[in-house]
Amino acid sequence: MNEKLKTFMDEKIPEIERELTNQLAKSDIPDILHESMTYSIQAGGKRIRPLLVLAVLSDLHLDSADALKVAASVELIHTYSLIHDDLPCMDDDDFRRGKPTNHKKFGEDVATLAGDAMQALAFQALADLRETPPAAAIELVGLLAKASGAQGMVKGQVLDMKGEQQVLPLADLEEVHLHKTGALLAYCIDAGAVLAEATADQRFQLARFSRNIGLAFQIQDDILDVTATTEQLGKPANSDMTSEKSTYPSLLGIEGAQTQLKARHEEAINALRSIDLEHSILHLLADYIIERNK
Amino acid sequence: MNEKLKTFMDEKIPEIERELTNQLAKSDIPDILHESMTYSIQAGGKRIRPLLVLAVLSDLHLDSADALKVAASVELIHTYSLIHDDLPCMDDDDFRRGKPTNHKKFGEDVATLAGDAMQALAFQALADLRETPPAAAIELVGLLAKASGAQGMVKGQVLDMKGEQQVLPLADLEEVHLHKTGALLAYCIDAGAVLAEATADQRFQLARFSRNIGLAFQIQDDILDVTATTEQLGKPANSDMTSEKSTYPSLLGIEGAQTQLKARHEEAINALRSIDLEHSILHLLADYIIERNK
Repeated sequence: MNEKLKTFMDEKIPEIERELTNQLAKSDIPDILHESMTYSIQAGGKRIRPLLVLAVLSDLHLDSADALKVAASVELIHTYSLIHDDLPCMDDDDFRRGKPTNHKKFGEDVATLAGDAMQALAFQALADLRETPPAAAIELVGLLAKASGAQGMVKGQVLDMKGEQQVLPLADLEEVHLHKTGALLAYCIDAGAVLAEATADQRFQLARFSRNIGLAFQIQDDILDVTATTEQLGKPANSDMTSEKSTYPSLLGIEGAQTQLKARHEEAINALRSIDLEHSILHLLADYIIERNK
Repeated sequence: MNEKLKTFMDEKIPEIERELTNQLAKSDIPDILHESMTYSIQAGGKRIRPLLVLAVLSDLHLDSADALKVAASVELIHTYSLIHDDLPCMDDDDFRRGKPTNHKKFGEDVATLAGDAMQALAFQALADLRETPPAAAIELVGLLAKASGAQGMVKGQVLDMKGEQQVLPLADLEEVHLHKTGALLAYCIDAGAVLAEATADQRFQLARFSRNIGLAFQIQDDILDVTATTEQLGKPANSDMTSEKSTYPSLLGIEGAQTQLKARHEEAINALRSIDLEHSILHLLADYIIERNK
C-alpha cells in the first residue's frame, strides 16, 4: 500500500473506531441491545466510508472536531444495512467477515432491533455536532436520509432483490449498484464537502468522482467473488455465481469487467484532476479500492 | 366525543393524511416499495401522535406550515415500528387493524425494507422544514432519534421481549411502557413545544403531562385487551392473556388498573392546569385517549 495512504489510515482508523465506541456508550441502552450493536460495529470492515469523509476534509485542508462524528454516523448506517441484509428473510447469510452474523449470534428479533436502533443513532450523531452550523448539520441529515432510504440504499436493495431471478442488462445492473452501494459512498464524499464548505464546482466534480468510484468498487467486488478464495473473503467465494445473480463478470466476462473497472477508475481520477486534487488522499483511496484483494 | 375535539380532529386528520401521502410521493421510489409503505401508512390508525403535535401548537396559539411535516414525521416512525413489530421474528402478527400485516401482503423482505425506508423518511421530513430555524430542526432530529432508538422506543421493545417470559413487577412494567410507547408520545408533545418556542416551564409541565398520559394510554390498552371484543379491536382480544404477558390488569386486577388509569389521568391534567392549559385540546385528547373503546 502507498506509504502516505498507510499513514493516513493508521492514524484515522483507530480514531474512527474510538468514535464508534463513543457513539454506543450511552448508559441507558439495554445490555443485550448494546452487545448486539457493538458486536457488528466491532466486526471489522475496511471503514471505507468514514475514511472517505475524512479524506475529503484532509484534501481540502480543513479540519473539524465534528468530522469523526459524521464519519461514524455513516458507518452506523452501513452497519445497520449489513445486519438487516444478512437476515433470513433477506440474504440469509450465516457468516460475515469470518464471524457468525448478528442474528446467528443474538437472534433475529434482537438483530432487527439493533439495526433499527443503529439507524436512529446515525441521525442522533448528526444532531450532536457542535462546531458545524445548524444549517449544515440539517443539510447532512437530509442528504443521509435520502442516500440511505427509499431513494437510495434501500431502493438499491429492492432493485437487487427483484433482479436476482433474472439476467439484468448492464444499465439495470448499474442502476442497482448506483443505489445499493453508490448512494452511501457518494454521501460520504458530499458530507465531507459540506463540512469543508466546498465550492459548487468542487461538489460537482467530487460527485462525478463518487459515482465512478462507487461503480468501480462494485465491479471489483464482483471480480473478487469469482477470483478470490473463501479464506480471503471471509465468506463463501463464488456465492454470486451459485445464486445466478447478474454481475459484471457474468455479463461482460472477467476481462470485460476489468476493462470497465479501469475506465471507471480513470474517469474518477479525471474528476479529481479537474479540481486540482490529483495528488490527494482521495486518489490514493480510489487506487486502494480497486487494487484490494478482499 | 366532545364537540370541540371532534371539530379539531375532523379538520386535522385529513391534513395529516394528505401530508403523509405527500411525503411518500417521491417519483424515484420503486413501485413495490412505495406500495408497501403506502399500504401501512393508509391502514388507518387513530393518528394520535400527529394530533398531539398539532394540539400543542393549537393550544399555544401558534401555527407553522412545518407543523404538518413534523406531525407526519412521527407517524412515519410509529408506522415503521408497527411493520417491524409484526414480523414473524418479533410478534408474528398476521393482522393489524383488521387487515393483513405488511409482511403477509408483501413478504418479509419488502416489509423489513419498507420499515427501514420509512425511518429514513421521517428524518428526511425534518430536514425539509422550511419555516423552522435550522437550530430547532436539528434539535427535533436529536429528540426524535433519541425517542425512537436504543434509549427510547427500541429499548422498550427489547425490555418487552425480555419481560414476556416472566411476571414483571409493576415498576418494570412501567419502565417498558415509558420507553416502548411513552418515549414517542412524549416526543410529539415536546416537538410541538419546540416548534412553538415554549418556555422552559411549559416544556417541563408538558413533559409531566406526556409521561402520565403515555402510561394512561397503555393501561387503557391493557384493559381493552381484556374487556373489548375482537371485532372492536380489529385484532384478537385477550391476546396478552393468552401469551401470559404481564399487564396492568394481570398485576392489579381490572379495578386496580382502572384506579391507576384515573390517577395518571388526573396527574396529567394537573400538569396542564399549572401552565393554564386546563381548557385545551390536549386536555380533550387526554380524555379521549382514556375513554376510547378500541
